[in-house]
Amino acid sequence: MNVAALFTSAGINIALCVILLSLYSILRKQPGNVKVYFGRRLAQECIGRNDPFCFDRLIPSASWIVKAWATSEDEILSVAGLDAVVFLRIVVFSIRIFSIASLFCIFLVLPLNYYGKDMVHTDIHAESLDVFTITNVKEGSKWLWAHCLALYVITLSACVLLYSEYKSIARMRLAHITKDKASLSHFTILVRSIPRSSEESYSDCVKRFFTDYHASSYLSHQMVCRSGTVQKLMTDAENMYKKIAMYKSPSLNQICEPCFSRCSFCGGTTNSFKKLSDDPERVEEKPNLDHLTSKDHLNSDNGEKECAAAFVFFKTRYAAFVASQVLQSSNPMLWVTNLAPEPHDVYWSNLWIPYKQLWIRKIASLLAATVFMLFFLVPVTFVQGLSQLDKLQKLFPILKGLLKKRYMSSLVTGYLPSVVLMLFLYTVPPTMMILSAVEGTISRSCRKKSACCKVLYFTIWNVFFVSVLSGSAIDTINAISSPKDIPTQLATAVPRRATFFITYVLTSGWASLSSEVIQLFALLCNLFYRFVLWKEGPSDFTLSFPYHTEVPKLLYFGLLGFTCSILAPLILPFLLLYFFLGYIVYRNQFLNVYVTKYESGGQIWPVVHNTTIFSLVLSQVIALGVFGLKHSPVASGFTIPLVILTLLFNEYCRQRFYPIFKSISAQDLIEMDRRDEVCGRTEEIYDQLHTAYYQVSLMSSDVSKAEGPSNSGTTDSYEAPASKSGLANPTFETVPLSGLRQAITWLSMLTASQQKNQPK
Amino acid sequence: MNVAALFTSAGINIALCVILLSLYSILRKQPGNVKVYFGRRLAQECIGRNDPFCFDRLIPSASWIVKAWATSEDEILSVAGLDAVVFLRIVVFSIRIFSIASLFCIFLVLPLNYYGKDMVHTDIHAESLDVFTITNVKEGSKWLWAHCLALYVITLSACVLLYSEYKSIARMRLAHITKDKASLSHFTILVRSIPRSSEESYSDCVKRFFTDYHASSYLSHQMVCRSGTVQKLMTDAENMYKKIAMYKSPSLNQICEPCFSRCSFCGGTTNSFKKLSDDPERVEEKPNLDHLTSKDHLNSDNGEKECAAAFVFFKTRYAAFVASQVLQSSNPMLWVTNLAPEPHDVYWSNLWIPYKQLWIRKIASLLAATVFMLFFLVPVTFVQGLSQLDKLQKLFPILKGLLKKRYMSSLVTGYLPSVVLMLFLYTVPPTMMILSAVEGTISRSCRKKSACCKVLYFTIWNVFFVSVLSGSAIDTINAISSPKDIPTQLATAVPRRATFFITYVLTSGWASLSSEVIQLFALLCNLFYRFVLWKEGPSDFTLSFPYHTEVPKLLYFGLLGFTCSILAPLILPFLLLYFFLGYIVYRNQFLNVYVTKYESGGQIWPVVHNTTIFSLVLSQVIALGVFGLKHSPVASGFTIPLVILTLLFNEYCRQRFYPIFKSISAQDLIEMDRRDEVCGRTEEIYDQLHTAYYQVSLMSSDVSKAEGPSNSGTTDSYEAPASKSGLANPTFETVPLSGLRQAITWLSMLTASQQKNQPK
Repeated sequence: MNVAALFTSAGINIALCVILLSLYSILRKQPGNVKVYFGRRLAQECIGRNDPFCFDRLIPSASWIVKAWATSEDEILSVAGLDAVVFLRIVVFSIRIFSIASLFCIFLVLPLNYYGKDMVHTDIHAESLDVFTITNVKEGSKWLWAHCLALYVITLSACVLLYSEYKSIARMRLAHITKDKASLSHFTILVRSIPRSSEESYSDCVKRFFTDYHASSYLSHQMVCRSGTVQKLMTDAENMYKKIAMYKSPSLNQICEPCFSRCSFCGGTTNSFKKLSDDPERVEEKPNLDHLTSKDHLNSDNGEKECAAAFVFFKTRYAAFVASQVLQSSNPMLWVTNLAPEPHDVYWSNLWIPYKQLWIRKIASLLAATVFMLFFLVPVTFVQGLSQLDKLQKLFPILKGLLKKRYMSSLVTGYLPSVVLMLFLYTVPPTMMILSAVEGTISRSCRKKSACCKVLYFTIWNVFFVSVLSGSAIDTINAISSPKDIPTQLATAVPRRATFFITYVLTSGWASLSSEVIQLFALLCNLFYRFVLWKEGPSDFTLSFPYHTEVPKLLYFGLLGFTCSILAPLILPFLLLYFFLGYIVYRNQFLNVYVTKYESGGQIWPVVHNTTIFSLVLSQVIALGVFGLKHSPVASGFTIPLVILTLLFNEYCRQRFYPIFKSISAQDLIEMDRRDEVCGRTEEIYDQLHTAYYQVSLMSSDVSKAEGPSNSGTTDSYEAPASKSGLANPTFETVPLSGLRQAITWLSMLTASQQKNQPK
Repeated sequence: MNVAALFTSAGINIALCVILLSLYSILRKQPGNVKVYFGRRLAQECIGRNDPFCFDRLIPSASWIVKAWATSEDEILSVAGLDAVVFLRIVVFSIRIFSIASLFCIFLVLPLNYYGKDMVHTDIHAESLDVFTITNVKEGSKWLWAHCLALYVITLSACVLLYSEYKSIARMRLAHITKDKASLSHFTILVRSIPRSSEESYSDCVKRFFTDYHASSYLSHQMVCRSGTVQKLMTDAENMYKKIAMYKSPSLNQICEPCFSRCSFCGGTTNSFKKLSDDPERVEEKPNLDHLTSKDHLNSDNGEKECAAAFVFFKTRYAAFVASQVLQSSNPMLWVTNLAPEPHDVYWSNLWIPYKQLWIRKIASLLAATVFMLFFLVPVTFVQGLSQLDKLQKLFPILKGLLKKRYMSSLVTGYLPSVVLMLFLYTVPPTMMILSAVEGTISRSCRKKSACCKVLYFTIWNVFFVSVLSGSAIDTINAISSPKDIPTQLATAVPRRATFFITYVLTSGWASLSSEVIQLFALLCNLFYRFVLWKEGPSDFTLSFPYHTEVPKLLYFGLLGFTCSILAPLILPFLLLYFFLGYIVYRNQFLNVYVTKYESGGQIWPVVHNTTIFSLVLSQVIALGVFGLKHSPVASGFTIPLVILTLLFNEYCRQRFYPIFKSISAQDLIEMDRRDEVCGRTEEIYDQLHTAYYQVSLMSSDVSKAEGPSNSGTTDSYEAPASKSGLANPTFETVPLSGLRQAITWLSMLTASQQKNQPK
């Protein structure tokens, strides 16, 4: 690839970006698209939706950019939560470090690379991009100290920036935890693996255990009920039968009413009824507290549906935290306690999983992820083939004439490979989300974090190592399997693939941002609803930010930046442009589109930190290999202490900051408890606790809003209409049963309407 | 090596063993040796020491074997503690598993190996030992299923035995923790990294923090004082000055007395005074509790000596445990809490280490251990050379005539190499103990466990891998560095080195047991005292069991057994003999010789379990390589699931049992607290707490009994007289200052005698 091809590619992408952003600025002004582009503001603020038509609506404008730029961090924190701020901090960190890197590498390293060999430079347009990489520096060059210096500058500034970011994010996390509004999850623990006993129900057992050993702080508890689809169908059918019976003998109305309410509480999610009844408050109403704790009801009617898990509420945060941290029983497989997730963060469908299964589920999902990584390589190999025109021409002789044309050749080598790769990569996040759900995570944020890590490993392995080293997994494993050769292998391969990475940033990076801002899928769905079905579309049309796709993407571009910075500095301006654009786009999206339903409290930062350290060390190791290949012992010698220092820095940060992200300190918890007591808020909190973890209302509200693992995968993930049909557990297992469910829903609708028409 | 050479070696060793054991049975009857052979009984029971001379004393007898055999496990538990029982369980486990393995391998695998190739078998005496190994099975043999079956039987029985052992040891550990006698360490936590403040002393700071955040359960605290040697010298000099001043003005006696007592409490171990004064009770007396907690005294006089660590006492076990588990401050580097070790288990010299240093100390000691491992290889390589006679003859042509003789050749190839290796290995445990002390462990048992792990890794790497693969570390790293070749590499190397391993068991194994029972070093010291110095020797002449040398030894022999069992089954009878002998010897030693000063409560078992699993997986991987080399895809195919199942089994055990060894359950702690309350023992315990962690008395009593890192290394470690001279911190750093200390001691002696002579 030469400079001209690069400019072709850059030109296409810049044009595309400008067109899409202009289109966005027009589309967002149309009242019909307000659901697509202002989902969050629609859900959380009251904005007017029916502007009169004016010509201004058809002119592209940059006002949204100004708005996104001008919004302060505090505003984003209040609107989108800590996770969003931490996410934006990744972008800011990247902008800062790559600005420094650009400064050094473009003005110091790039000229050295270009004039590294005694050669006659042809016209700059026809110059191969390899001339700008370190491959152009002749062996034994005296100028390699400059590369080593640049590496030092980049590493040191990265460490300083990382430290200050870690420190400030840790401070923000503390502020988030100790914020004024009491977080109910701090008072609650999730107990799993309650021992089964023939004499007493799970509920009694929990009560006995906690009144025995945590008498002073135990408040109450709430059993978790199994919420599988079959279970739900059974409950629905049961309720149906009761409703029909009720319809036949109206005199029994009084008796049946509590039965219904009990069933809807325990295990059965009777969403189908709720959806259809005209009185939504009825199910949303506060559950009867007597029912909640009364063992008779729970036990006699629904004893079979209770599972060996419960939420236990404590009087103080400190007591709950202590109970969650301490081993409860001398059999570590019984009475397993964790701090409960926030009510909206609970991943209900995983709570019934027997604790004994968890370890094997974790191993299985890990194995599955590994297998997926290995089998994914078929398309990647194919894509790598595309970038070598001669191979392609051999494969499809019919293309020979077409590919002879110059612009086609530029297009195919510069653009197509990364587009295909990007499309294939879109299947990865949903798969990883499913695997993370199978793993048995108890909260949505944990599931997303786990999927995020899996996608990250996947990206680094498949998109970086395999594409760099050989294009086939087996060859890569061979190449990696002798550790001492890794630096040399990478040192020869990375500069050679630098061209591919530059085009990858242009296509995958810029295009993904444009498609993120334009929300193509949501836009099409909206159009389909409005112009084909002639209706308004679902009313609660909100998305949750896909951290598990965006964080790995940013980190991967960071990895490319670090590894290529001294080898092929030409990538840096494109990368910087990407991060600047990302800064604007993501801010805009957080402000307007995505709704924060649950938060992890910045839990993603340790992953970001570790990945950045990995990228730094990898770039140092590659530099070590390059210096070795170029016979520069001085530069190699100076790089080794840098690797050691970077690792020591990482270890220090792990000691200093990581515990804050794993745990909450006793001091903070006790202070918060005291503050509550002084303000007299404790009673109010206790009241809230009872209703907060009310399984049915949460599950149904989640269903109406939340994303399932199958549709939250891609960047422009959209709440697929399937998940609106009242399935509490919108995972893959629900699909085959949807027909049966439809029938029951229809039946219940019928009964409800008959009931309504009946004279009282 | 042929069968005859093996029998030569076995004959020599059996004869040596019989002689040494007979000698032991005579020596132990001599009243003069009672300190050497009955140290524990002398220290803990009252046994008569002056039997009249009778002829019986000169006749070897087997009564000690009968006694050791007949003692029940409960008796050993009460006499030597849980760690000893766990140690003996390793031996019992090994006997059981290798009995099963012998049964299968000797009767099924050995004949198949012997008749594996169509060859004419010569006279059995001249037969090479290789004929009995798997190398003799021809390629593509149909009989390899038998090896695979044997592998299955061994693995499955090992897993069943491991599970039952883990379970029963976990039960014993629980019983040990919840035993009737209250363990004071359960009420105590060690707080380190107390924040420095200019306004208040550390002691005030601790008091303020714990009365603030743990008001309901905080009892009191005790500061830890820095006990470096320089510090001690300063204190001694200060005391000396005061004594001299006191001598000059007897009227000040009343005032100076408390000063002295304060100084001896804080930091300074005034052992030199104590040792010389004729009134030992005076220093051993209960410290004045007012002094202990009174901040004025501590602060004004000794503020500089306090370090940022304290023992904090709580009213209940549960409260102490919770405080030790929970993150105290939002800065994880401040207020670091751990459950305190038992008073006699505290490793005082490490308590003053600033917590911030610990992570770097850990990394440094890890690096040092790795470097030591690599540099150790020079003697090992030399030893490997010895077993190849032709190389030796080339090296020392003068030996040519000598080595031509047949018995000399047998001796040199069969015996000498392992003796030399064994002697070199004796330097390893003391080095690892020093490194573990540098690491900053807070308890002696932790230090020993850490040293045990280091010695174990060392042994497996240097004695197994390096000696198997090549004889040089660099070659071994090369061989190991491509993971996919490891099975093949090991499969070719291990059967070839099987002969060496058999002789290693004969020499190192049997000989080490004989030398263990005869306690050569202690015996010589005793003789030196009695016949050269003409005195009784130190009165408290006790040893602590060197787990850090014996556990790795047993585990290493286990590793040899597992890896060689199907490859060279001839090793198994020798190994079984070793374990039987070990069972008798170790029981005898626990009953008579070693005193248990501190216990870890069976903490070593998880290490044993993991190592055994490692050995199993390693033997399976080697078998996989062998089956691959022998072109037996069926056997290879059946081995792979075995590896996976073994790893899954290990993971299950880790989930099921490991938390019990890391932590104590809330249920148990609360039950214990209640029991105390019911029995009305709480007040008594609180009283004991104050005196239990009294630094000076503990340090001085430790000094008079405990072992320093420099002399507890070898199997027959002996309390070197150097450690009796009153050094509280008998590490390497004390050596250069001993001259100065001597001078001060002499001065103080002078003052004391003058003071005594003075009329009151």
